Amino acid sequence: MSEDKRKEIADLGEFGLIKHLSEKFDNVQESTVKGIGDDAAVIDRGDYYEIISTDMLLEGVHFDLSYAPLPHLGFKAIAVNVSDIAAMNGIPKQVTVNIGISNRFSLQAIDALYQGIKYACDGYKVDLVGGDTTSSSSGLVISVTVVGEVAKDKIAYRSGAKESEILCVTGDLGAAYVGLQVLEREKQVFLANPDMQPQLEQYDYLVRRQLRSEARTDIIHEIRDLGVVPTSMIDISDGLASDLFHLCEQSGLGAAIYEDKLPIDKSTYDTAVEFNLDPITCVLNGGEDYELLFTLKQDDFEKVKKHPDIATIGYMHKAEKGKVFVTKNENVVELQAQGWKHF
Amino acid sequence: MSEDKRKEIADLGEFGLIKHLSEKFDNVQESTVKGIGDDAAVIDRGDYYEIISTDMLLEGVHFDLSYAPLPHLGFKAIAVNVSDIAAMNGIPKQVTVNIGISNRFSLQAIDALYQGIKYACDGYKVDLVGGDTTSSSSGLVISVTVVGEVAKDKIAYRSGAKESEILCVTGDLGAAYVGLQVLEREKQVFLANPDMQPQLEQYDYLVRRQLRSEARTDIIHEIRDLGVVPTSMIDISDGLASDLFHLCEQSGLGAAIYEDKLPIDKSTYDTAVEFNLDPITCVLNGGEDYELLFTLKQDDFEKVKKHPDIATIGYMHKAEKGKVFVTKNENVVELQAQGWKHF
Repeated sequence: MSEDKRKEIADLGEFGLIKHLSEKFDNVQESTVKGIGDDAAVIDRGDYYEIISTDMLLEGVHFDLSYAPLPHLGFKAIAVNVSDIAAMNGIPKQVTVNIGISNRFSLQAIDALYQGIKYACDGYKVDLVGGDTTSSSSGLVISVTVVGEVAKDKIAYRSGAKESEILCVTGDLGAAYVGLQVLEREKQVFLANPDMQPQLEQYDYLVRRQLRSEARTDIIHEIRDLGVVPTSMIDISDGLASDLFHLCEQSGLGAAIYEDKLPIDKSTYDTAVEFNLDPITCVLNGGEDYELLFTLKQDDFEKVKKHPDIATIGYMHKAEKGKVFVTKNENVVELQAQGWKHF
Repeated sequence: MSEDKRKEIADLGEFGLIKHLSEKFDNVQESTVKGIGDDAAVIDRGDYYEIISTDMLLEGVHFDLSYAPLPHLGFKAIAVNVSDIAAMNGIPKQVTVNIGISNRFSLQAIDALYQGIKYACDGYKVDLVGGDTTSSSSGLVISVTVVGEVAKDKIAYRSGAKESEILCVTGDLGAAYVGLQVLEREKQVFLANPDMQPQLEQYDYLVRRQLRSEARTDIIHEIRDLGVVPTSMIDISDGLASDLFHLCEQSGLGAAIYEDKLPIDKSTYDTAVEFNLDPITCVLNGGEDYELLFTLKQDDFEKVKKHPDIATIGYMHKAEKGKVFVTKNENVVELQAQGWKHF
C-alpha cells in the first residue's frame, strides 16, 4: 500500500501505541481537564470533577470462558472500571455496558452475565444508564464506561507524588496471578481427562481474586473518613512494579520499596512455591490485583498506619536514585517492570 | 446446564433483549435523570444536563473491511455516537475510544483508522480523552462513548411529542442503504474477477453516505439559532419507519407521514430503480442515514419551513389512529417497521 516498510504494533507495545496515537490529538473543550494518560479522564463540572474511565474485555485475550463463569465475568467487567475511578480518589456513579455476543449464547447465558453486572452495580452503587447489545461473529466482547465524581481538592493524579512521601498499597498482591496459574493447570488436567473434576477448594481465595476482582472503593471511603488525601494514586492492574513505574515517571521521581513490607497472602505464597514460582516475583509483576498504590504526605502516615488493609511499602525519592527494590538482606537492586504484554 | 429449555436471543430481538436486560436494573444515584431507553443517558450537572451515548462496531457485523477504508471507519465510529448526542438536541464535547485489533494490522493501518477518528473529532469539536487499546484474537472492534451537554430547557426526548405537532426530518433518506447495495455488488464483481476495478464514481454520494456517515450537529446549531426547540427527537439509524415507531411509542401517539413529502436524493432514487428496489421502501426502511427525525409545535413551523435541509413529512395524531403512510394517490396504509436485525 505504502512505500514505507510495514511497522508492527508489537514493536511499540501497548503504552507506546497509546502515546503514539494520542500525541496527534489536542483538547479544545474548556471543560476537559485531563485527557489520555491517567487512570481516567477528568471533566470540569463546576463545583467538582467528573471522571470517566473505559475498558474493553475480549474473549480469548482477557478471559477464557472455559473457566470464567459468566456472572463473575460480568462482575469483573464493572469492577475493573470502577477501580480506575477509585484510583483517581473518586466515587463511581453511572456505567454504560456494550456487549457483542455470538448466537452460540442462549438467553440464559446473557442473563448470567448480567446477573454479575447487576451484582457489581448494586455493590458499587452505580446506575446502569446505557449501552449497546449487538451480535458478534466471533467471541464475546464487553466494553464498559464508568462515570464518577470527586471533589476538586481531593482528586489524585499519577503525577502528584513528592520527594520523601510514603508509598502505600491496599490489600495483598500476587493472588490474582497465582489464581490464574491454578486455573490454567486445572484446565489442562480437564482437557487431558474430561472425567477429572477440578480441585479448587484449597485455592478458593486465589481463584476468586482472578475471576471476580474487586475495586477498592471501600478504601476510598475510609481514607476520606480519616481525613487523608493521597498525593498520587494508581490502581495495580499491570503489576506493582509496572504501575509504580507509571507513578514515578509521571511524578518525575524514583522510589524505594522493601521486600519485607510487601503484603502477600499465605495462600499466594504457598501456592506460588507449589507452582515453582518466586512469590515475590508474583507480587511485583503479577497484575490484575486491582489494589491501590498511592503516596501520602509523611504527616498523614499516623492516620493510616493502624489501618489493617493498608501497607506502607516504601517511599519516593529523587529520580536519579532510580526505582529500587530492597531485599530482606538489604541488597538494593534495580526494579524491573514487566507488566502485561497485550500485543 | 439448567432444566429450562434453552431460550434464543433471536426470539427477543435487539429491542426486546435491551428491555429484558434493563428492567432488572434500578437507578439509585440522584444525578441520574434518564437511563436506558432514549438515544443517550442523561445526567444532572446542576445548570445543565450531561448526555452520554455509547456504541460498538464489530468487524463482520457492522462493517466489512474489504470495502470500508479505515479512515472512513474511524470517522463513522465517532459520527454515529455524536449523532445520538445530536438526537437529544445536545452538543458533543468529549469522546473515549476502545479498540481491539489483531496483529494482522500494521501500525500504518491503525494510524489510518485514527486519522479518521481525528478528522471526526476535529470536525465535531470533541476531545478524545481516553480509551483502551488491546489485541483482539478475531476481528477489529471499536467501542466509542461520547459525552455531550444540553441546557435543561432544550433537551429533546423521544417521549415529548404532542398531538397535532408536525414531523420533520433532516437531509434525505435511503442513500446509505442504497450505497450499501452498490458496495455489495462491486464486492461480488471483484470476488468473481479480481482484475475488475470497482466502478463507483457515479455512486459517489451513496457510497459516501454508507461509509462515512455524518452526524447532523450542524442542524442542532441552526435550529438553536432559529429559536426552535424540538419537542421530541431521534436519529434515524434503524430506518425512518422503525425510528418513527420508537418516537410514537414513547410519546404514546400515532403519526401520519406522506409519500410525496419524503426527502430522497435523485441518485438514491435512480440507483434503487437500477437495483430493482422500491425507492420508497429504501427511504422507509433503509437505515444508517443518521438524519434527525423530530417534532415541532405548529407555531415553530414558520421558523423552519424555509430551511433547505429540513423537510416536513407529516404530523402526530392520537395513538388509536395508528402509524400510517399516505401514498401519492392518497391511499392510507399501515406503516411497517422492519428495522435492522442484529440477531
